[in-house]
Amino acid sequence: MTAPTATAQIGVTGLAVMGRNLARNLARHGYAVAVHNRSAERTDALVREFGDEGVFVPARTPAELVAALQRPRRVLLMVQAGAPTDAVIEEFAPLLEPGDILVDGGNAHFADTRRREAKLRERGIHFVGTGVSGGEEGALHGPSMMPGGSKEAYEALAPLFQDIAAKAPDGTPTVTHIGPDGAGHFVKMVHNGIEYSDMQLIGEAYDLLRQAAGYEPARIAEIFREWNRGRLGSYLIEITAEVLAHTDAATGRPFVDIVADRAGQKGTGRWTVQTALDLGTPVTGIAEAVFARAVSGHTRLREAARALPGPDRPELHPDDAARFAEQVEQALYASKVVAYAQGWHMIQAASEEYGWGIDPAAVAAIWRAGSIVRAGFLDRITAAYRANPDLPGLLADEGFAREAGAAQAAWRTVVSTAVRDGVPVPGFSSALAYYDSLRAERLPAALIQGQRDFFGAHTYRRTDREGSYHTLWATPDRPETRTE
Amino acid sequence: MTAPTATAQIGVTGLAVMGRNLARNLARHGYAVAVHNRSAERTDALVREFGDEGVFVPARTPAELVAALQRPRRVLLMVQAGAPTDAVIEEFAPLLEPGDILVDGGNAHFADTRRREAKLRERGIHFVGTGVSGGEEGALHGPSMMPGGSKEAYEALAPLFQDIAAKAPDGTPTVTHIGPDGAGHFVKMVHNGIEYSDMQLIGEAYDLLRQAAGYEPARIAEIFREWNRGRLGSYLIEITAEVLAHTDAATGRPFVDIVADRAGQKGTGRWTVQTALDLGTPVTGIAEAVFARAVSGHTRLREAARALPGPDRPELHPDDAARFAEQVEQALYASKVVAYAQGWHMIQAASEEYGWGIDPAAVAAIWRAGSIVRAGFLDRITAAYRANPDLPGLLADEGFAREAGAAQAAWRTVVSTAVRDGVPVPGFSSALAYYDSLRAERLPAALIQGQRDFFGAHTYRRTDREGSYHTLWATPDRPETRTE
Repeated sequence: MTAPTATAQIGVTGLAVMGRNLARNLARHGYAVAVHNRSAERTDALVREFGDEGVFVPARTPAELVAALQRPRRVLLMVQAGAPTDAVIEEFAPLLEPGDILVDGGNAHFADTRRREAKLRERGIHFVGTGVSGGEEGALHGPSMMPGGSKEAYEALAPLFQDIAAKAPDGTPTVTHIGPDGAGHFVKMVHNGIEYSDMQLIGEAYDLLRQAAGYEPARIAEIFREWNRGRLGSYLIEITAEVLAHTDAATGRPFVDIVADRAGQKGTGRWTVQTALDLGTPVTGIAEAVFARAVSGHTRLREAARALPGPDRPELHPDDAARFAEQVEQALYASKVVAYAQGWHMIQAASEEYGWGIDPAAVAAIWRAGSIVRAGFLDRITAAYRANPDLPGLLADEGFAREAGAAQAAWRTVVSTAVRDGVPVPGFSSALAYYDSLRAERLPAALIQGQRDFFGAHTYRRTDREGSYHTLWATPDRPETRTE
Repeated sequence: MTAPTATAQIGVTGLAVMGRNLARNLARHGYAVAVHNRSAERTDALVREFGDEGVFVPARTPAELVAALQRPRRVLLMVQAGAPTDAVIEEFAPLLEPGDILVDGGNAHFADTRRREAKLRERGIHFVGTGVSGGEEGALHGPSMMPGGSKEAYEALAPLFQDIAAKAPDGTPTVTHIGPDGAGHFVKMVHNGIEYSDMQLIGEAYDLLRQAAGYEPARIAEIFREWNRGRLGSYLIEITAEVLAHTDAATGRPFVDIVADRAGQKGTGRWTVQTALDLGTPVTGIAEAVFARAVSGHTRLREAARALPGPDRPELHPDDAARFAEQVEQALYASKVVAYAQGWHMIQAASEEYGWGIDPAAVAAIWRAGSIVRAGFLDRITAAYRANPDLPGLLADEGFAREAGAAQAAWRTVVSTAVRDGVPVPGFSSALAYYDSLRAERLPAALIQGQRDFFGAHTYRRTDREGSYHTLWATPDRPETRTE
């Protein structure tokens, strides 16, 4: 079914699976959607296969797409990140008028989004870099959406986005105006980084239950199902149980045992860590997760190192194994709190750095549905930041501090057991190290400052007075000089 | 003392402390050195204060400097990295002729060096990005030098560089041709990354001896002195003992206790991790070290989190403390092996990526003197790669594998103790996790691939056959399809 020109409320260009599903989602919600793709086949296929879902206006060219749109025009780009996105922007921008809105729903790097937004702003065009989480299914049935850009542009998009976004358990659509320019793509990037960390921690919990507790995948699937009913309840825990319960039809073996143990990755986990390094915010959990995937893929090195000696693993008594499984739940929960604390720290640092004014409570709220990290847990983060918008970090929240504190004894037991048994737990142990670093009265950073002053005259500060100091290490008696 | 024009063998522009000291080092070795600085004061001061050390040819302008040089001209830039370096290159390049050589001895990012080298190569000018380690003292008395660029350029520089470089215990100068374009600055960057990791591990060892063993700094200084006579013998261990033995004159307290525990950093540690992420090589030790410094500086967050609950620390019996100190030596050594293994992995990956043909044995050899990480240990790395240039990683070397294997029981005890006592050891524990990951028969990466296939149709490979597969998770019976 098609409609006459200039009646469509939004246009979508780029009809690969994400673009197609978002277009269908919009049409199903009663919007007339102009659709365009570089090769017309995909446009035709969309109209042919899904035309009865709503009003689609097929367009052969960018000009046709733009001509089909009501003003202010809303054009959603769903094309490959990088150079292809720039190319499509250059095709569309000359066809648009001041006040029109270009939305990039791809996985752009936030720095690119900042650059594009600034450039289009000069021409009076609103550019909205929007994170979209939830994959193909989310795009069709309701994603979590993270739009950045001007307030004005957001207001023009909000009715549509609120309709197509997922709905949190309390009915709220999982979309909000994140902040200016690159804020939306930034938050989406951190979302993915946290997802890496979450998946790594779940992987370690599984590995411990398998190697240290001696459970089979089917039994571990049961444990994850049980955990899914508690405070760990989340989409990732739910699908972990599904994957672990699955039997490979060809061999009759647990599915997880026939999958090659080399984890792939796309760019966003890597970007998150690289950006955190620039911001000076520690995201050790994400870094360990990204690097753990990298290690898994270095087949030749792993083969060469397989003969490295390890410890003997004691067999656990069934009662001890059951107790251990409970402790793993606590370690997983506490480590997850750290992963999210680090992610939020990074979001807040960027918000300050770029003047984005991101509401940390709102970010948690819009990940509650649609997104891969959706979890009841996120309500807690929202509540923590609503109660104290100036919270210096999640672990400074009374509730999270109490929970992490209550878990710490079990957490230590689990990490010690892993260390003793030779089960690699880079995520669990780096989360615990972060926890212990934050609460440390004194860190060995003081010694490092001393070393740096010794070999590079980098100076140090003192605990008892203001100023920068340098010790003349090569002079007898090593006198101290004040340098500023 | 000055000399007539066109007699200087090398020119130095940029006479801040590093440039001045390198110029003096060259002059002391009998080279006539043309010297130039944007403000003539520094040039005059150099000649006035150190003119009796050798032959300096003061130049007022870049043209004068170039005119003073024998052909092919060798000009050493010792200016600030980034835009200032580009500006100075643009001043000098038009004055040079094909075959002349511009050397950048600053701390440039290797990607900038690659760009500059390519651009100058078009004009027939050799550009040599050179890592220089050893700080001010090294520049004057003998640095470790890491030049990258054309072979031809290296040959023209080698006699001078070999004279001014530090000499390893066997008398060899600590300089070699690292490889084309950015190879020298790349290796210097990794050198600094490893330095971060080494310092963090030493900091953790100190913290454990202090917090878990209950020793005072003076006693710990003794222990480091003792370690310095063994396999850990190195400049960093040596100066750690000096710093720990030092008493603050103003308070009479151990110096390390009056230094503020917030560690500073410059860019190279961060660059190392960011680059490793691009290369896909895990450098978890360096990442944890860089992030540990970041944590130390987040004062507000640390204050807010200081009340987080921790464990009680049992007091150790003196015999147990002494035994523990021995175990810490083993944990430190094994963790250090991992840090260097990760650094070399990264160097080898970049060498392949950029076609640099770096000799991994030679890199270890030129760090043996002059550099901050100088250590007897480096001879072992050289020997490992000489014995097997195709070694997939240091931990695949028989000797290092044996040593790490012999240390693993103590290593596990130390990390468990730290975890039990609440002493943060991100470096020790991530090194151990890396060790255990490499030797793991199966990693939970298989589960992660299953999750990724479930929520994003990312496909997986199988352990028993070729090809990529996707399970139709939403279809009853979950059939498997082959996707390539």
